[in-house]
Amino acid sequence: MKALDAATIARSVAAGATRARDVVDASLERIEAGDGAINAFTAVTAERARARADAVDADVAAGRHVGPLAGVPFAAKNLFDVAGLTTVAGSVILADNPPAAADAQCIADLEAAGAVLVGALNMEELAYGFLTDNAHYGRTHNPVDTARTAGGSSGGSGAAVAAGFVPLTLGSDTNGSVRIPAAFCGVVGLKPTYGRISRRGMVLLAPSQDHVGWLANTVDDVAAAWRVSHPSPGALATDGAAPREATIGLAGGYFAELMSRDVRAAVTEAAELLGPTVPVEFPEPDMARAAAYAITSIEASSLRMDDLRRQPERFDPATRDRFLAGALLPAHWYVRAQVFRDWLRARVRELFERVDVVMMPANPFPAPRFGEEEVEIDGAIHPVRPTIGRFTQAVSSLGLPIVCVPVARPGALPVGVQLMGRPDSEPLLLDVARRLEGAVAARNAAAVTAHSA
Amino acid sequence: MKALDAATIARSVAAGATRARDVVDASLERIEAGDGAINAFTAVTAERARARADAVDADVAAGRHVGPLAGVPFAAKNLFDVAGLTTVAGSVILADNPPAAADAQCIADLEAAGAVLVGALNMEELAYGFLTDNAHYGRTHNPVDTARTAGGSSGGSGAAVAAGFVPLTLGSDTNGSVRIPAAFCGVVGLKPTYGRISRRGMVLLAPSQDHVGWLANTVDDVAAAWRVSHPSPGALATDGAAPREATIGLAGGYFAELMSRDVRAAVTEAAELLGPTVPVEFPEPDMARAAAYAITSIEASSLRMDDLRRQPERFDPATRDRFLAGALLPAHWYVRAQVFRDWLRARVRELFERVDVVMMPANPFPAPRFGEEEVEIDGAIHPVRPTIGRFTQAVSSLGLPIVCVPVARPGALPVGVQLMGRPDSEPLLLDVARRLEGAVAARNAAAVTAHSA
Repeated sequence: MKALDAATIARSVAAGATRARDVVDASLERIEAGDGAINAFTAVTAERARARADAVDADVAAGRHVGPLAGVPFAAKNLFDVAGLTTVAGSVILADNPPAAADAQCIADLEAAGAVLVGALNMEELAYGFLTDNAHYGRTHNPVDTARTAGGSSGGSGAAVAAGFVPLTLGSDTNGSVRIPAAFCGVVGLKPTYGRISRRGMVLLAPSQDHVGWLANTVDDVAAAWRVSHPSPGALATDGAAPREATIGLAGGYFAELMSRDVRAAVTEAAELLGPTVPVEFPEPDMARAAAYAITSIEASSLRMDDLRRQPERFDPATRDRFLAGALLPAHWYVRAQVFRDWLRARVRELFERVDVVMMPANPFPAPRFGEEEVEIDGAIHPVRPTIGRFTQAVSSLGLPIVCVPVARPGALPVGVQLMGRPDSEPLLLDVARRLEGAVAARNAAAVTAHSA
Repeated sequence: MKALDAATIARSVAAGATRARDVVDASLERIEAGDGAINAFTAVTAERARARADAVDADVAAGRHVGPLAGVPFAAKNLFDVAGLTTVAGSVILADNPPAAADAQCIADLEAAGAVLVGALNMEELAYGFLTDNAHYGRTHNPVDTARTAGGSSGGSGAAVAAGFVPLTLGSDTNGSVRIPAAFCGVVGLKPTYGRISRRGMVLLAPSQDHVGWLANTVDDVAAAWRVSHPSPGALATDGAAPREATIGLAGGYFAELMSRDVRAAVTEAAELLGPTVPVEFPEPDMARAAAYAITSIEASSLRMDDLRRQPERFDPATRDRFLAGALLPAHWYVRAQVFRDWLRARVRELFERVDVVMMPANPFPAPRFGEEEVEIDGAIHPVRPTIGRFTQAVSSLGLPIVCVPVARPGALPVGVQLMGRPDSEPLLLDVARRLEGAVAARNAAAVTAHSA
């Protein structure tokens, strides 16, 4: 049974029509039955979840206020602190640490809104990669096709939603770690504006680019998670503004090159579904991606320097070389990358004088099979791993809010598009994402009907 | 003849009692007569200055408004653009550049207030050092004792005021480059809050620590220069607030160690003159100095990387090795220094919950003689050059406003104290500096009287 969406669950629980305990028990049963084939979870917090669900039900029974996520089971990437669990962040080095004393702020925020944590999710070691093929905790399989990756680094977060284990998960995004799993698993992902959502109790990869984010089946559900986690969503400039037609830019050049035929077709169709778009050119995308990579690799290595010196053998071989390479880079590269980043921000601000939202693909090709190392695109061979982040990483250093919306036709492998907005433009951006989601659903329903007829 | 202070000149010119042209001519004559022995100037803009002075006089004669610096001759460190001159920043590499098309913003701000630029001032190559013993443009001699350095990197800016050539100069400060020349030459220096004063038209050394600053004979004069250069001095939180007794902290530990006997005596006496002080401990001063140095050396090398690769032989030997060393540092050092800097800022914010101003010495010893490479303090030998910045560099990464006030007794070599305040607390800070200045003047007058009696 596929999990309902969070909004439907919360309405039903709040109305007393469904018990939170039943919702949570059903989620735990689905995980128990199905996660052997997926490996999305590294820990299930059943006892805590049942107690929490009972408390929500008691509130409902007593007529006390319950939040907008009442009774919604959710799970968190295992780099977020869960009281009583050791926060491993996909690493065995961190597994030596004592259990966390308190929940991460973003978990506490969801639970304060009535949601119920049911477990911790697998990820790429220390959030450094796009495959979630973790040498210590195993690979997370894509529920769409278990021979394929669920993406990463929040692979467990994408798979747990796509498998129907929970309707909502927490992930983190530095270069695409929410957006890639969302795109590969065919779910919605939201990377909010940098710096607005608390990272207290989160293991960092590259602090100047790390974001908390959410994955869910619907735009409404990531929107609700964002809203209850933001310190002042009502204070945002565009929130509550008179509804108006947003101007949508469609990124050309780099963002229209080097993608598989099915991704190209899906993105083109999504743009048509969204209505008229304005072509925009993102400034210096290759340099932007290189800068984001240099910043990530340098900050990440700096954070892990002691472990790299003392116990490099305990790193996942898949990430170790990247950390070591970052440790060897000269300071000049970091300064130049940050100087370029300032330049880029200013150019992108100008771009947003003409449009409200920029649309671009999320994944250059659908989720690859495990072991697949090369991909052929337009007759040329490209390495899989370094190409996955092509469209997400190029915009990652900007810290702008991005919603990733699935747009593939039914039966096809998932494809996502990124919708990127101005800082703090989440309300507008989520409205556009809802519009695209609705148009895709209508088209898919029509296609299924036509197919059945 | 010693130049009058800027405020007196401006009042007299505005009232029509003195002609700006006469003031400027007198300044040009003093430079002509005296700068052979000092070498503060690398360019004198006599023609421009006379025309500008005539324009001020015409405004006065016509009853038009003239600014608060009407007719005040000033000069600018040669890293600030002067229209028609090539901005050399103490380097011969930059001397290849075409002349600047426009004045630096900070020069334009002073001239908009009626001041008159008379020339460009010598400095350490690219602002990287404390001696102004420039291999290309010569050494700047301290007017107090020409066998001694005027300090640096704004050595010309300190010497031009101390020699009485002009009552006001522009300098820049990254690790003490305004404060050290002020302290060594016995004049007042102001390094304002980071980021508030435009650096347009200024050659940068280390952008995240570079400040525009001013040197003058009186606190009132640097205050006037700050006020006319600040985009909104009236908007500052403490400006116009009801006058109250500021709580003065006296930095102990590191800031009470490793200084010559005469500096210690002068600082102790200055603290007594200022009234009751609260002892404060500045957090991790050695690390703070190391971080400021790493940040400077890395940012400076990054800015000069092309020249370091293509024409290292054209650098001043005194700065080249520092630039090259910075170019070889790993990115990890820069990230760690910036992370530490964030920590330090937070700790220093806490410190400023208890006090309004922190007082500490500016120079660990008076201006050394050229060629003097070692100094004996409390029986131990210390290298001169690396020790000069001990007290200025440790607080430089914070970007806090600092006034440097001369406090030595008459006839002794100059000694300065730093008064450091919260961000944007210049009005309060300058009030405290005026109080100290007045107390020192009263003590000195009494000492002279006693000596004469």
